[in-house]
Amino acid sequence: MDLNADVGEAAGEAAALELELLSHLSSVNVACGFHAGDPDGMVRTVRAALAAGVAVGAHPGLPDRFGFGRRWMDLAPAEIEAIVLYQLGALAALVRAEGGRLAHVKPHGALYNRAADDPAVAAAIVRSVLKFDAGLFLYALAGSALERAAREAGLRVVREGFADRAYTADGRLLSRRDPRAVHRDPARIRAQALHLAAGEAFPSAEGTPVRVAVDSICLHGDTPEAVAHARAVRAALEAAGFAVRPPGG
Amino acid sequence: MDLNADVGEAAGEAAALELELLSHLSSVNVACGFHAGDPDGMVRTVRAALAAGVAVGAHPGLPDRFGFGRRWMDLAPAEIEAIVLYQLGALAALVRAEGGRLAHVKPHGALYNRAADDPAVAAAIVRSVLKFDAGLFLYALAGSALERAAREAGLRVVREGFADRAYTADGRLLSRRDPRAVHRDPARIRAQALHLAAGEAFPSAEGTPVRVAVDSICLHGDTPEAVAHARAVRAALEAAGFAVRPPGG
Amino acid sequence: MDLNADVGEAAGEAAALELELLSHLSSVNVACGFHAGDPDGMVRTVRAALAAGVAVGAHPGLPDRFGFGRRWMDLAPAEIEAIVLYQLGALAALVRAEGGRLAHVKPHGALYNRAADDPAVAAAIVRSVLKFDAGLFLYALAGSALERAAREAGLRVVREGFADRAYTADGRLLSRRDPRAVHRDPARIRAQALHLAAGEAFPSAEGTPVRVAVDSICLHGDTPEAVAHARAVRAALEAAGFAVRPPGG
Amino acid sequence: MDLNADVGEAAGEAAALELELLSHLSSVNVACGFHAGDPDGMVRTVRAALAAGVAVGAHPGLPDRFGFGRRWMDLAPAEIEAIVLYQLGALAALVRAEGGRLAHVKPHGALYNRAADDPAVAAAIVRSVLKFDAGLFLYALAGSALERAAREAGLRVVREGFADRAYTADGRLLSRRDPRAVHRDPARIRAQALHLAAGEAFPSAEGTPVRVAVDSICLHGDTPEAVAHARAVRAALEAAGFAVRPPGG
Repeated sequence: MDLNADVGEAAGEAAALELELLSHLSSVNVACGFHAGDPDGMVRTVRAALAAGVAVGAHPGLPDRFGFGRRWMDLAPAEIEAIVLYQLGALAALVRAEGGRLAHVKPHGALYNRAADDPAVAAAIVRSVLKFDAGLFLYALAGSALERAAREAGLRVVREGFADRAYTADGRLLSRRDPRAVHRDPARIRAQALHLAAGEAFPSAEGTPVRVAVDSICLHGDTPEAVAHARAVRAALEAAGFAVRPPGG
Repeated sequence: MDLNADVGEAAGEAAALELELLSHLSSVNVACGFHAGDPDGMVRTVRAALAAGVAVGAHPGLPDRFGFGRRWMDLAPAEIEAIVLYQLGALAALVRAEGGRLAHVKPHGALYNRAADDPAVAAAIVRSVLKFDAGLFLYALAGSALERAAREAGLRVVREGFADRAYTADGRLLSRRDPRAVHRDPARIRAQALHLAAGEAFPSAEGTPVRVAVDSICLHGDTPEAVAHARAVRAALEAAGFAVRPPGG
Repeated sequence: MDLNADVGEAAGEAAALELELLSHLSSVNVACGFHAGDPDGMVRTVRAALAAGVAVGAHPGLPDRFGFGRRWMDLAPAEIEAIVLYQLGALAALVRAEGGRLAHVKPHGALYNRAADDPAVAAAIVRSVLKFDAGLFLYALAGSALERAAREAGLRVVREGFADRAYTADGRLLSRRDPRAVHRDPARIRAQALHLAAGEAFPSAEGTPVRVAVDSICLHGDTPEAVAHARAVRAALEAAGFAVRPPGG
Repeated sequence: MDLNADVGEAAGEAAALELELLSHLSSVNVACGFHAGDPDGMVRTVRAALAAGVAVGAHPGLPDRFGFGRRWMDLAPAEIEAIVLYQLGALAALVRAEGGRLAHVKPHGALYNRAADDPAVAAAIVRSVLKFDAGLFLYALAGSALERAAREAGLRVVREGFADRAYTADGRLLSRRDPRAVHRDPARIRAQALHLAAGEAFPSAEGTPVRVAVDSICLHGDTPEAVAHARAVRAALEAAGFAVRPPGG
């Protein structure tokens, strides 16, 4: 089982916490300067990730700094392709200059959510990955349009689940506008991680059980408790016999 | 002799003019989204350049959209490296996706000017080119610190001169703050281009003759007369027996 | 009849053209730093407009520099309010520091177009104008949802028409994606301006006549022919007996 | 004694912490969208501050999102004026729309630091405050060029000290590049706050005593311990008999 988190999104002091988080993960998704991140911070994040032996992936987002890439923009497929290719190229150049290799891609925010439902957006993302490097792993919400489009194109897909996000009964993420969207209770986060890893059912937001097959569990790095949660989830997974390692690792 | 221009810097209708300019050049330097440009526009520019058989280079600038990359920012060498690498990677990904190959790099604005004088800035740019692709041509102001640093590092340097910019008596560009900085007279632009190409002396801003050895002549693409100037300069060069072609071409 | 144009949107040399355009207009809409523009350039534009006796208005856009504010973003009404208020406040501060007074507001690009059709967007814009300064004129596409919302709120509305844009038979602007969207022929632009000013019918894109009642005619400032068009349109209007002056002027 | 902090600089989950911090302060400095912040977040911050009875000030920064406004940019005085005026106008519009009133200005990062030493930068900031609203309080590093320029211009100055930053023996802030720059020890932060408030000497980074006369103490809001520090400092000040309230309050 892979443990991933989005990094390179924090400013100032909060950025230090992210580096601490790294050592508890097997993969990180690095913000590429559009919704968050900047070239110099990307280098520092990449260097820390490579030093920690963590797989480095791109986390391309919409060019909406003010909205943190969480607001959909009315983009043509060609614009999406250009946006993803640009960010893949930029991060890959920094990773290579540090002696590493870009391992995967995971779209951010509105791009991730839209690609989960909209086949045209999913296809545009898949095309940009194919054009850039067909060997990259593509992270996609388990059961999403992006997962399907990537499989059909022959890309290696990493189905992603969330230990600290509530799911609907039909296996979708509960919208962040719902106050129940993010779990805060460490025990619940740990339990959901174990259920996801084992392919077992767990309670949805509606209370009914839901089952989601995943290859990677995403943890959030932007809360004060992020490091504690990551440590606890990893320990729980390893205690249950799961090896925590990156896709293909 | 190479004829180059900076492109991908215009918004709206003015962008159409740039595409018209392309066919009169042998090389273009594409803005990479920092001082100007955006992913989708970069793709359109790259596509047009490749279709016109023009060599495509990166034109990385400082992350200062408001100031068009013309104001120096107090950047550490590592920050400069990251900024240049990021933009090289981004543009190269778009060029490759269009079936082309990035041919060269030419820093923009304050980055170009500072690298002409400041060996630490020049060295940082050279390091990023070496790390990204040591086969790229590096455009540098003829006689600049950047030219020296690039040669010492073994990079292939293209010494650049300007047909429509005034020079000082010691072969430097007159600051843009000086009203005489930019030539408007087509005859003068054409004449200066011929002198630069032939390695002959021409009048400096002070009136005394100045001689500058160059491999490429830069034309400006951001004036209404840009296309007419480019056509005239190219015709004059070819009439004088110079073949207009990209570096190494 | 008012003659207006969007200004402060050009970079580099093209910005000089805009200043030349000013003297042929009665009102200008100044880009406020989101889709285009920057504080220093805004000051220069405002100063030139005040010196030319032209009414200065705000031209707030979506925070999408890469897309020039032309791509709709999925914004909540509260986000639209905040975006418009922010830009109004910013520009008004610069105008006041130059000894002038902000006269009007005209939304830009996707914000303008969406407000023409979507009552919730129109209402958000109207609320921000009411909160900022209920004495401002609000420019709106003649016949749009924004015109209606502004009238109902008691704002002073300036109904706007376009001399160089094609209209559909039912009095709407033809989408820019249509190759016929922008008139290039000076005679046609001049004729459409006269018909708009006189409230007479003129040919729509479909060929059938269309009639649009307007208080202001918008000219585009981003083409090489902009100054010539503006001069010709103004001369034609004045020759036909129309006084060219700002709303309320 | 005033207790202030910079707010509106955090993204995502970290933004929630800032709101918690508010109730322990008497003044907040709101990021205005250049080095950090966005219109919608500014509204939320302003609303929370007004609801908590905290004075709202502007925290204008350099237009360098990537560098968080911490890198000096080579700006002409007129550019600095435009940048400060723009941000003052933008924030003031949002504050007024929420029924409040902008109370003060405190420059951010490189603008703050440069204005402490460079009279031309200090004068440009002072001019923009005078042009916008001469009744605003201007926060300045105690003993700085900005303090002097503001006093000479007749502005009301708030001399600022830092409870969690190390001082040099001559009363200047130790550069952030020095690892000792930021205090982490709560007892030390509390003690330095009390010494600053009482006008007593406290240990400089070199160990020798330093004395700094201040009207306001700045706390940092971007660390996980920020709320705890603010609560402790405020309690210590109040226990020592200082009333915590905004300037002029």
